Amino acid sequence: MKCRFGSRFAQGESIRVQHGRDESAHEPAPPDAVFFAGSTDEVAEVVRLCGQYRVPIIPYGAGSSVEGQVLAIHGGISIDLSRMNRILAIHGDDLDATVAAGVTRLQLNAALKGSGLFFPIDPGADASLGGMAATRASGTNAVRYGTMRDNVLAMTVVLADGRIIKTGGRARKSSAGYDLTRLLIGSEGTLGIITELTVRLHPIPEAMSAAVCAFPDIAAAVDTVIQSIQLGVPVARIELLDALTISAVNRHSHTTLRELPTLFFEFHGSPAAVSEQAQIVQGIASSFGGQEFAWATRNEDRSRLWQARHDAYFACLQLKPGCRAFPTDVCVPISRLAECIQATKDDIARVSIPIALFGHVGDGNFHLVVLVDPASASDMHEAEWINERLVERALAMSGTCTGEHGIGIGKTRFMVREHGVEAVAVMRAIKAALDPTNLLNPGKILPPGASS
Amino acid sequence: MKCRFGSRFAQGESIRVQHGRDESAHEPAPPDAVFFAGSTDEVAEVVRLCGQYRVPIIPYGAGSSVEGQVLAIHGGISIDLSRMNRILAIHGDDLDATVAAGVTRLQLNAALKGSGLFFPIDPGADASLGGMAATRASGTNAVRYGTMRDNVLAMTVVLADGRIIKTGGRARKSSAGYDLTRLLIGSEGTLGIITELTVRLHPIPEAMSAAVCAFPDIAAAVDTVIQSIQLGVPVARIELLDALTISAVNRHSHTTLRELPTLFFEFHGSPAAVSEQAQIVQGIASSFGGQEFAWATRNEDRSRLWQARHDAYFACLQLKPGCRAFPTDVCVPISRLAECIQATKDDIARVSIPIALFGHVGDGNFHLVVLVDPASASDMHEAEWINERLVERALAMSGTCTGEHGIGIGKTRFMVREHGVEAVAVMRAIKAALDPTNLLNPGKILPPGASS
Repeated sequence: MKCRFGSRFAQGESIRVQHGRDESAHEPAPPDAVFFAGSTDEVAEVVRLCGQYRVPIIPYGAGSSVEGQVLAIHGGISIDLSRMNRILAIHGDDLDATVAAGVTRLQLNAALKGSGLFFPIDPGADASLGGMAATRASGTNAVRYGTMRDNVLAMTVVLADGRIIKTGGRARKSSAGYDLTRLLIGSEGTLGIITELTVRLHPIPEAMSAAVCAFPDIAAAVDTVIQSIQLGVPVARIELLDALTISAVNRHSHTTLRELPTLFFEFHGSPAAVSEQAQIVQGIASSFGGQEFAWATRNEDRSRLWQARHDAYFACLQLKPGCRAFPTDVCVPISRLAECIQATKDDIARVSIPIALFGHVGDGNFHLVVLVDPASASDMHEAEWINERLVERALAMSGTCTGEHGIGIGKTRFMVREHGVEAVAVMRAIKAALDPTNLLNPGKILPPGASS
Repeated sequence: MKCRFGSRFAQGESIRVQHGRDESAHEPAPPDAVFFAGSTDEVAEVVRLCGQYRVPIIPYGAGSSVEGQVLAIHGGISIDLSRMNRILAIHGDDLDATVAAGVTRLQLNAALKGSGLFFPIDPGADASLGGMAATRASGTNAVRYGTMRDNVLAMTVVLADGRIIKTGGRARKSSAGYDLTRLLIGSEGTLGIITELTVRLHPIPEAMSAAVCAFPDIAAAVDTVIQSIQLGVPVARIELLDALTISAVNRHSHTTLRELPTLFFEFHGSPAAVSEQAQIVQGIASSFGGQEFAWATRNEDRSRLWQARHDAYFACLQLKPGCRAFPTDVCVPISRLAECIQATKDDIARVSIPIALFGHVGDGNFHLVVLVDPASASDMHEAEWINERLVERALAMSGTCTGEHGIGIGKTRFMVREHGVEAVAVMRAIKAALDPTNLLNPGKILPPGASS
């Protein structure tokens, strides 16, 4: 492939190492080579070649996955789609845009400047849209705008044998056969490689305002969230940060937030609607002892606030110099959220490693940042214990082991516990039907073993 | 099976005939027997028996499909789920409910009375929720609340070999593996039989008001819709009825609407939000020559209005006594809607059979009710011509041949044109993986032939 693609087929150590890790604490696993794809046809060509030689293929977007999705655990070729970064069409009138898979969410939003439209899905990292679709990403805006599942209309996908298919279309809805788009969203590159996608856009709300409110304890904050959601207030964002996270954020982002459990809100709509929503939520918050709302209505202030929120993960990493973090990602029905968080806090009190808690609580989704020295057996043991109990707790509450990070290699062992042996067997049957020689991102999502 | 299930296994002529047809004009095809299922385990048992004897299985809900989905075109056993009609749990705090597949949407909404919650998906007919999931149904509220795709969280499904799986869960979002829920939604009983499902509920808006507005011509009405959607006004319903439909509705429902192209609107929200939305849309309508809004704010008046809308299909049938209708169901990107409707109107002007037009134009979805005497070759020829051209037009506009009715047997011939040979081959591979002997609703969705 070297002669066919020149420097776009790279086998140098540093490029391989860079493509063998993501944002997670998983042990890096570099691919044997990296191919920087320039087009869907090129991806198909390389996939066919890999098929001939039985070489595993690992699609790579921005490398911002957190469950080891991009790691080449069985070797093979990393197909880096980041140079496929053209915005192919913006259909403003139809509120959609078609992009190559390597376009990132910030790049798309920059291109939308002046159009009155935006792409709301925001997982924090400036991930590629292809990667976000592949992991069914969501983030802070999902409570209002949904996840990638809800915001992708159509895709171009290269299959395991190099065939190229188009799924979906640009109509807002369709009942025409099996929903291949939704099957591929969240399949983490194990069923096909997404090379182009059409995403929904949304009109920029006339008014947007963000606020921060501190609470005496975490239960009061969570109860405020639950009641706001149950009343159907269409909040655009409602994020919880525990006291430890706030203290990390203050240090990292030079903010001066009170170091208490805190909710970050954002409201979108007409000026009247925003003020109405804010009033309702302020009333709820104050009934649970929430202290006054600190508002950010200017765009710069809102951006600064959300940047601080997005940096929370990195801020937490600095709580324990030299540490690594392994993030957790459970999501539970909202009625169980307070209980789930409380029991988790009780567990946290029983271990010695620092653990910060924050998340997209409007969806019932929260993360722990479990800070470990990977060389310390006791740290790792505590971290495993916390994570295992957390997942068991979420599953017992009809929740999921992952709200938005995906399975990767980090959560394969929970698949059967969450879905049951038979449903996992169905997933295996689909994988075998679409990728019979297991070339596409092998070892991800499905647990090892033929029947478990 | 007679001795095992007694009268719940029925082979009488009239029951078979009743289960061999739906609301469509397709030639009825009665099953060899009808099994009235009482539980998921019973469905699994009958599926296993059918597997042993290679007997086709056709799931049956309320019989309100319109593309022949319930017809036993290859014989076999119709599994009638209408007696599995228990509401299993209402989780008001989590805004979800778990029901057996035979529960109808009106039944669920009746059970929700007093809870402050409702289930919004409303395809007109009082369909079963299992059937609605199986055809990815939507209807008048979809522009605001989405389709069945967006409103099902979890399902219990009997597979072709009698295994029972649970898909999804009660968390609002999850990235845990392949989205089997979405794969099965819209699969029309060809991949599995949905026996239970958990659906999302929504808080009943504080204020709801409906209005009717007549326009000088259909283009003015459509332009009003397009502009409202592009501005992001969160209308709950926005329905177009052409002049012929209005005249049929007036006769059938004893209304006195002006016989002009007309939009039916509904607005949901706080009183202030409803009045704000209404004001914006009234402004748009009046700029396009819309005549004054006639408001229905009392619940009875709103219900009467929407009943009249839902009866439009039956009202149209009475335009030509003794006729049958075959409905069309294209959906296009909103920017192409005016052009699509105008070109279709031009076609309608060229045929002699009466054709009414109405639909869920906020989603770009509209129906023709093409009234034919099935015995008249010229009627059938005209109808086919209209339909064929309409689907080609929608596909050329990046739309779909079916926005909400599904494929059934009526639209299999458009599958390759819409999705391409390779995507249909992927669907076939999935079907073969999950139902290798083709027992589940054979002949539906996938076109005949191994490779097309």
